[in-house]
Amino acid sequence: MRILAVGAHPDDVELQCAGTLAKCIQRGDQVTIAVSTDGSAGTNTVTSEEIARIRESEARASAKILGADFVWLGYRDEFLYESEDVRLRYIDLVRETRPDVVITHDPQMDYHPDHATTGQLLWNIRVMAAARTIKTQHPTFDNIPELYYMDTLAGIQFQPDDFVDISATMDIKRKMLSQHASQLEFMQARYGMTMVEFMEICSSFRGLQSGVRFAECFRRSVTFPATCRRVLP
Amino acid sequence: MRILAVGAHPDDVELQCAGTLAKCIQRGDQVTIAVSTDGSAGTNTVTSEEIARIRESEARASAKILGADFVWLGYRDEFLYESEDVRLRYIDLVRETRPDVVITHDPQMDYHPDHATTGQLLWNIRVMAAARTIKTQHPTFDNIPELYYMDTLAGIQFQPDDFVDISATMDIKRKMLSQHASQLEFMQARYGMTMVEFMEICSSFRGLQSGVRFAECFRRSVTFPATCRRVLP
Amino acid sequence: MRILAVGAHPDDVELQCAGTLAKCIQRGDQVTIAVSTDGSAGTNTVTSEEIARIRESEARASAKILGADFVWLGYRDEFLYESEDVRLRYIDLVRETRPDVVITHDPQMDYHPDHATTGQLLWNIRVMAAARTIKTQHPTFDNIPELYYMDTLAGIQFQPDDFVDISATMDIKRKMLSQHASQLEFMQARYGMTMVEFMEICSSFRGLQSGVRFAECFRRSVTFPATCRRVLP
Amino acid sequence: MRILAVGAHPDDVELQCAGTLAKCIQRGDQVTIAVSTDGSAGTNTVTSEEIARIRESEARASAKILGADFVWLGYRDEFLYESEDVRLRYIDLVRETRPDVVITHDPQMDYHPDHATTGQLLWNIRVMAAARTIKTQHPTFDNIPELYYMDTLAGIQFQPDDFVDISATMDIKRKMLSQHASQLEFMQARYGMTMVEFMEICSSFRGLQSGVRFAECFRRSVTFPATCRRVLP
Amino acid sequence: MRILAVGAHPDDVELQCAGTLAKCIQRGDQVTIAVSTDGSAGTNTVTSEEIARIRESEARASAKILGADFVWLGYRDEFLYESEDVRLRYIDLVRETRPDVVITHDPQMDYHPDHATTGQLLWNIRVMAAARTIKTQHPTFDNIPELYYMDTLAGIQFQPDDFVDISATMDIKRKMLSQHASQLEFMQARYGMTMVEFMEICSSFRGLQSGVRFAECFRRSVTFPATCRRVLP
Amino acid sequence: MRILAVGAHPDDVELQCAGTLAKCIQRGDQVTIAVSTDGSAGTNTVTSEEIARIRESEARASAKILGADFVWLGYRDEFLYESEDVRLRYIDLVRETRPDVVITHDPQMDYHPDHATTGQLLWNIRVMAAARTIKTQHPTFDNIPELYYMDTLAGIQFQPDDFVDISATMDIKRKMLSQHASQLEFMQARYGMTMVEFMEICSSFRGLQSGVRFAECFRRSVTFPATCRRVLP
Repeated sequence: MRILAVGAHPDDVELQCAGTLAKCIQRGDQVTIAVSTDGSAGTNTVTSEEIARIRESEARASAKILGADFVWLGYRDEFLYESEDVRLRYIDLVRETRPDVVITHDPQMDYHPDHATTGQLLWNIRVMAAARTIKTQHPTFDNIPELYYMDTLAGIQFQPDDFVDISATMDIKRKMLSQHASQLEFMQARYGMTMVEFMEICSSFRGLQSGVRFAECFRRSVTFPATCRRVLP
Repeated sequence: MRILAVGAHPDDVELQCAGTLAKCIQRGDQVTIAVSTDGSAGTNTVTSEEIARIRESEARASAKILGADFVWLGYRDEFLYESEDVRLRYIDLVRETRPDVVITHDPQMDYHPDHATTGQLLWNIRVMAAARTIKTQHPTFDNIPELYYMDTLAGIQFQPDDFVDISATMDIKRKMLSQHASQLEFMQARYGMTMVEFMEICSSFRGLQSGVRFAECFRRSVTFPATCRRVLP
Repeated sequence: MRILAVGAHPDDVELQCAGTLAKCIQRGDQVTIAVSTDGSAGTNTVTSEEIARIRESEARASAKILGADFVWLGYRDEFLYESEDVRLRYIDLVRETRPDVVITHDPQMDYHPDHATTGQLLWNIRVMAAARTIKTQHPTFDNIPELYYMDTLAGIQFQPDDFVDISATMDIKRKMLSQHASQLEFMQARYGMTMVEFMEICSSFRGLQSGVRFAECFRRSVTFPATCRRVLP
Repeated sequence: MRILAVGAHPDDVELQCAGTLAKCIQRGDQVTIAVSTDGSAGTNTVTSEEIARIRESEARASAKILGADFVWLGYRDEFLYESEDVRLRYIDLVRETRPDVVITHDPQMDYHPDHATTGQLLWNIRVMAAARTIKTQHPTFDNIPELYYMDTLAGIQFQPDDFVDISATMDIKRKMLSQHASQLEFMQARYGMTMVEFMEICSSFRGLQSGVRFAECFRRSVTFPATCRRVLP
Repeated sequence: MRILAVGAHPDDVELQCAGTLAKCIQRGDQVTIAVSTDGSAGTNTVTSEEIARIRESEARASAKILGADFVWLGYRDEFLYESEDVRLRYIDLVRETRPDVVITHDPQMDYHPDHATTGQLLWNIRVMAAARTIKTQHPTFDNIPELYYMDTLAGIQFQPDDFVDISATMDIKRKMLSQHASQLEFMQARYGMTMVEFMEICSSFRGLQSGVRFAECFRRSVTFPATCRRVLP
Repeated sequence: MRILAVGAHPDDVELQCAGTLAKCIQRGDQVTIAVSTDGSAGTNTVTSEEIARIRESEARASAKILGADFVWLGYRDEFLYESEDVRLRYIDLVRETRPDVVITHDPQMDYHPDHATTGQLLWNIRVMAAARTIKTQHPTFDNIPELYYMDTLAGIQFQPDDFVDISATMDIKRKMLSQHASQLEFMQARYGMTMVEFMEICSSFRGLQSGVRFAECFRRSVTFPATCRRVLP
């Protein structure tokens, strides 16, 4: 299968589904990580331009550890809006990556407008990629992908209906997250712990709920056209 | 009564509420069908411009069978966005048609962003049509219409609270849908059945739920100002 | 039509739907009020037996003002439980009154277990009254009645989907409620106002929501078999 | 895997999950069908005792077609209540059948108290079967089974999150349902169609929603302890 | 504490939380009232420009009675849209007022798109005010404020989880509302009562629910980062 | 204030609200812990009678550490049912302890029928304790207590609206939980970790959500009569 995971900011995919993506890789899937915004708000010390450059290279390094393809969409952090241009860009992303499954943010529940907008964009365009009258760089993609929403930040308001055991891929997840060096101290200052510690609490808690050491959790978007497939690893 | 039914694409109103509209006509109501977008994405064979022209004439023919007035809003299929201009256009639509009841898509539940945007637009402007400081082509309309959401495509996620028996008007519904000849093969290719067969399964299922042969179902938008009326036929 | 309104305690029907019942009477319906429990907890001054006798005669007087039939079920106040015997009694109530519509408490939302149990009982048995193998005093009743839930006490947690304008029958409602003399001072002590004042605030508020002076509100129980009827006055 | 499907009445399992069970059999699962009540209310023509005998043999014949084990619990139709005895009986059912997966009614959404009680009983006891201090006929069963709720009657109020393609097993489902000869005319009189026609409309509709000819749908009970497994065929 | 209350139109804050704000003032809080739009649609008699001027001075007079600071954002009534510019303006509002608590409209439930947009804007930017890379007129504000949603117009669809007793500050609320003289007759024409009477019914009803003479009610926005504080008076 | 915390089994209160209770004690509240069932199913090694005796003394020891009063209700573990007798017992519990606040299980969301029944019982009787016609051992209690639901086991399905920082009382919570020595190995066998480790993951996760090191979370039961108080420490 081909999997497309889209996060609003660099490190979102790592926090919420890197363990699952690693299992996908292990079973032979092809995985692409895409990042909506340039992460240019994630700093207290350097300029927006500098932090954006740093974060792109951190995110690429993280994707490399996973063995995933990587797409940097580069929209301005904190200011992602839906518009015709942006919608066409996401249509083209799906056409380029031709995914069986898209994993992204929950448009209703997560904590940040960039998250909501990213999730909503993927929901909006999941059928449009097949429309021949909509022209973008890549040819149309006729298969409508499954859509899964990953956990919210700190799990607030999220009601999972699928859990994935990531105990065996937890180290990869830790390593990927550690590439985001610029965010480690930023988060440390804000939350009094590293992003890895933050993530370990969440993964332990989701594991507790589902009977394993570490887990990630998801909510399937049940919308037309639904399918009879069960695609998570 | 005057009824305004607004679909995102040509054929949406036919699929979800044509049987109810036919009953409205039979009890003496005046009905207007409006279509938000030009349906220009609904083809694999001709150009956007051609399919838009074809679909408009199909939709007009369908409205004629019903005996309804018809408004073609002509926004670009797949790219309907809210904006000041668009909002003013929908305000003017309500002022022009002066409806007691508006039937449209559910802004929360349906499968396509054009559906959600159409439903949201009608919700947004249902009170504004009375505001004298907002100038559009037609004079203000002081009565705030009732708002009903019609069923979603294939009924996914929709929780009806009102059913209408359409057994006696099912033939009109079939005939109206059959006017959309360009979509019959398009849907056939995609779903392995004609749009009429698709609709018959849905109408049978809603009939099963409500104790009749064929039914359509609705969800009332309960919002300020609500009313004490029961307006469905 | 025939209407059966079932309250958990004497005065519940008066508080939540007397205005609607008065409108039903005015359009020619036959109305029955039934009361689940004997109201024997509603006193700080007399014995359970005395207050139960008092409350039955108050409730009968109130039903008389409305012009409704009256059924006193007489279960112990605060201790209504579902059981085979109780279920059979409610089946027989429906068979005796043969209602098109049943109005009762919301089993999920209201504030008291007797309310929840009463609402649940009516939901449980609405289909069973038609079963010939279940023997009770009265013959089977083949038509499955519509089920509406009336407002909760002080409207807490209640999401109405139907409003009824009771401005014209408000005086009847006040008069009916005033029959419950034993509760007036009881409520006065507890809430610092008479039951009539309490009710007037609720009816004004529901009127405000629905564009009239006074209103009552309801939630339709959408369950199999649903119907295509709209039965409220 | 071992699958336990529990219906409130004879024919419930056939209506809602026979196609899925047939696929389970085909992939090598061992399936047990259990029926809570004796179906003694399902007649207008014979006595309760006679119809109960008839329905048990119909249900056994249906299970035989599937190749499933069969358990007749025999509680009184329309009067299934939770109690210590009943709870112990269902604990023993799980211990006897040792299921990986239990499929039963949704305790919140379905149309009949026997359905709700059956679903609630299975939820209540899914963990208790492992408790050594609770003695029943069979030894404890340490593995807590997954719990899935099947569709409601006519799909009212049901929000599926899993669909199963039953196109290939639809004939088995039809055949199983046809064993319930006593109910065919009973339903025919009530709903104007045979139970098979009723079921075909539902299965077509669920198929339409999920992109196949015929489907059944389910809702996973997410409760402690959840798991990381995906067990449906 | 510092409190920021943001209404979509002049008089929204007065209707829904003036009593609570008065209690905040009494316990020593510093309060700011901000108004999103210029209220230019609230007239049937004068021009948009005139009514906007009138309403601003009415709103300022009302804030003065409370003893609150006042910010007039001045967006066009009925046409408030999210955009980068608008978002930056609200970020700056939070930076300027440095609130511990923000009270605003519920983005999901209230009756008007300006209400929804105002509520959504505050939710969107509550974290962004801390981002140093986002430049606005005022310096960043590092503390993320608590977010509370106030009651909807006529309380429709609102499910409160917090009530505030405003019996002692009801007179201030009445006086503040009375400053909005231009709206009194406007509302009178529309709803057959003054805005003060309208408000009194709502405040009485919320009082009834919470055991006091007059109350206002709120819903806490539980989103990341939540807190352990209880901040309402 | 007086606080009554009621758990279904020995150790439930410890797991879900001991940290909050410790803060209550520290601010001067009087706390009572009550346990519905005898915990007699919580063993694989000894008899029901033995384990019940052991668990009672463990629970008493735990309450002693907190400085709380203790009530052992002693109903049979796994078989707690509502009935007139049981209801009267809980009414008397409230009359004996005269609480301002009751903390107990969520009747809808938690994982075990004994939890649901305990939570439901407290909801059912919270008003009845004031009824003079209901006779139990202790005199009536006129004040209706606030009702809070504590977190579910492993937090599944729970949507908190209040968090309490328990960082400073975490040690007391650990110590209390450690008194339940008989359960430590029992849980260890089942979940591969001690109950203290299990609790630490949950408390860390709830802390992460609310910006502190360790937290507990609650959902307020909003039902008539609600109040304007905020009572959590």
